[in-house]
Amino acid sequence: MTTSAHAASDEHRTGVLAPAGFAASAVAAGLKKSGALDVAVVAAATAVPAAAVFTTNKVAAAPVVLSREHIAAGLCRAVVVNAGNANACTGPAGMADARLMAATAASVLGCDPQEIVVASTGVIGVKMPTGTVVAGVEQAVAALAAPDADAAAAAIMTTDTFAKQATAAVTAGGVTCTVGGMAKGSGMIQPNMATMLAFLTTDAPLTSAACDAALRAAVGRTFNRVTVDSDTSTNDMCLLMASGAAGGEAIDVGSPAFAGVAAAVHEVCGELARMIARDGEGATKLIDVTVKGALTETDAEAAAFSIANSPLFKTAVFGGDANWGRVAMAVGKSPAAVDPDRLEIVFAGVTTCVEGTGLEFDEAAAAEALASDHVEVLVDLHLGGEQATVWTCDLTYDYVRINGDYRS
Amino acid sequence: MTTSAHAASDEHRTGVLAPAGFAASAVAAGLKKSGALDVAVVAAATAVPAAAVFTTNKVAAAPVVLSREHIAAGLCRAVVVNAGNANACTGPAGMADARLMAATAASVLGCDPQEIVVASTGVIGVKMPTGTVVAGVEQAVAALAAPDADAAAAAIMTTDTFAKQATAAVTAGGVTCTVGGMAKGSGMIQPNMATMLAFLTTDAPLTSAACDAALRAAVGRTFNRVTVDSDTSTNDMCLLMASGAAGGEAIDVGSPAFAGVAAAVHEVCGELARMIARDGEGATKLIDVTVKGALTETDAEAAAFSIANSPLFKTAVFGGDANWGRVAMAVGKSPAAVDPDRLEIVFAGVTTCVEGTGLEFDEAAAAEALASDHVEVLVDLHLGGEQATVWTCDLTYDYVRINGDYRS
Repeated sequence: MTTSAHAASDEHRTGVLAPAGFAASAVAAGLKKSGALDVAVVAAATAVPAAAVFTTNKVAAAPVVLSREHIAAGLCRAVVVNAGNANACTGPAGMADARLMAATAASVLGCDPQEIVVASTGVIGVKMPTGTVVAGVEQAVAALAAPDADAAAAAIMTTDTFAKQATAAVTAGGVTCTVGGMAKGSGMIQPNMATMLAFLTTDAPLTSAACDAALRAAVGRTFNRVTVDSDTSTNDMCLLMASGAAGGEAIDVGSPAFAGVAAAVHEVCGELARMIARDGEGATKLIDVTVKGALTETDAEAAAFSIANSPLFKTAVFGGDANWGRVAMAVGKSPAAVDPDRLEIVFAGVTTCVEGTGLEFDEAAAAEALASDHVEVLVDLHLGGEQATVWTCDLTYDYVRINGDYRS
Repeated sequence: MTTSAHAASDEHRTGVLAPAGFAASAVAAGLKKSGALDVAVVAAATAVPAAAVFTTNKVAAAPVVLSREHIAAGLCRAVVVNAGNANACTGPAGMADARLMAATAASVLGCDPQEIVVASTGVIGVKMPTGTVVAGVEQAVAALAAPDADAAAAAIMTTDTFAKQATAAVTAGGVTCTVGGMAKGSGMIQPNMATMLAFLTTDAPLTSAACDAALRAAVGRTFNRVTVDSDTSTNDMCLLMASGAAGGEAIDVGSPAFAGVAAAVHEVCGELARMIARDGEGATKLIDVTVKGALTETDAEAAAFSIANSPLFKTAVFGGDANWGRVAMAVGKSPAAVDPDRLEIVFAGVTTCVEGTGLEFDEAAAAEALASDHVEVLVDLHLGGEQATVWTCDLTYDYVRINGDYRS
């Protein structure tokens, strides 16, 4: 299995267009003040097996409410996405706008609106400019004739600093299948769901149930283990569509080929999730937080999130300071079972704490390791055999700048 | 009941010295690199009824472990506090140092070490310089001959920008009693315990049980409702000592006079808690977050904390941006029961969202209200009759600066 990150050379084979059987496009409809691309469409030739996971936030945006209904049948012809307006906290008018986006795409594609998934990202609580978004959806669907995955990946960005695409290929049941994806997200990022917008395609002949199983398994250990700021968006969504264009027999959850395709889905989700962490608002460093030796995986995940969400820890990494005491603090405040006298902490490769007691360590070596743009922190609870890794980023001046002035 | 904030005119009657029957002092022992005051003592003339609450962090510092043992008997002669070293994650040597601090104070005062409470604050994981702290405790106890509450309040500061003292008086059972206190804390501040160091005194003749009941009730709705950055220190502690010097009959939990004294304790705790929120690391604004109309007080508190801990919300307030969508997001991600269609949000006095739908509002009026150094955010869930208020501060460039470079 091979994975290519963003910026591959052949623009027609990147991201969601790497698998056969899909088209993707984007236009600048005028929703972003900058005038950049802001409406994207990813479409199959017909309604294909698909699955999605959505935000757990109880204040869910209109497109989330609508798309939950639409995906229930396990089929999707196309997803339409806009950036620049979240269509959240917009009441009945917001639901009407989301339905209109689906109806517009369905009308141009000649399909049932139920087969359209809708996603939005941007400012919360501002009425969607109906005419602008409808015109954008019409134009974006028309632009599918000249597919461009890079444009689609760019259109869904908000405060992202780079477009996020990934692909993986797997030979399953004698047929080579490809999985591709694009994602956006760099703030209001937190676990318990898709944690951002992500759209995956595959030409593997997955059934709807297989799409659902592969997606949920992958999201649980990838997107749901990314945190930038502990905040959960009202709009998060992750969608997988399976065109079957690779050929071969249908792959269901029990098929021999399922594991291979599911691993490729996991690979793409992991790649995109790490890109999101690296592109956290204002981030200068990607941080891998691994907790091992836990009694349960739930404990390992909870302790890792407690560290990864600690503003004190994140500012210390930004400052290049191996302040491992903040890691000990974060582990101790988490719900995980912890014996303080067994705690071991390895901060950027330097062992700083053993049996709960601080060691003399080489500050210069730690500072050098912390100067990297990829920092690893390892905690061993020495209680059991379970572990989990969470990805996050440092907390910087730029996070404050970006979020102190987002709406203007 | 009257309350005086910090910087009262008569230095011998501020803070912990406002009630009769106590002495307080501080010295510069050399634990702070700045050379500032760093060891404080508050002592009664004999062991008096007392109670304390401690951090819930499972990685508790040595002084917390020791003081939990010592206060179990409900009596305290004195508390010794150092800043500059947390004595946390310091293993058996750290426990030995904490015991030595208690033994030193007991030796000079001529009491049992069990009657001494020990508290520490500062960097985690660095061995306490034993000789330095022992000499400091000796000198500080000797300095009790010239009581100085302001010096004690200054000595316990770390990144605090001002000393925190408060007093309240109440006439209970025909006797006028006074409650005084001092606190420190401006980072690693989070609920579920005392959330910082706070030391309260009263001359009311409270029993140990009455101390405990009054303190726990007050802390639950004051210190435990302050959050600066969601991080819980390994060292938090709040202590109440009752000298009985005001005279009158002993006040137990069932006594008619109890409610009045408990209210005064609550008043002092609330005053100190709000000072801590206002002095949050890098803060420019004190923020009151009130959630009402909740089904339960637990729900109201959970929703208010979700808002108050949201970095996106806190940076928006810093930026003077009435970005109420982030409040809606934070309420939705909280464990509280929420009906998104009933949600009402009043941001700095401006109603921005009713029935879950954003309103057109006067941005200029909101910006003006947000320019104040005290911002109130009100959420009405419109589900029930319970409410809670949490105090926090904005998230600023200076938070990042202070915490990116704390150890150096």
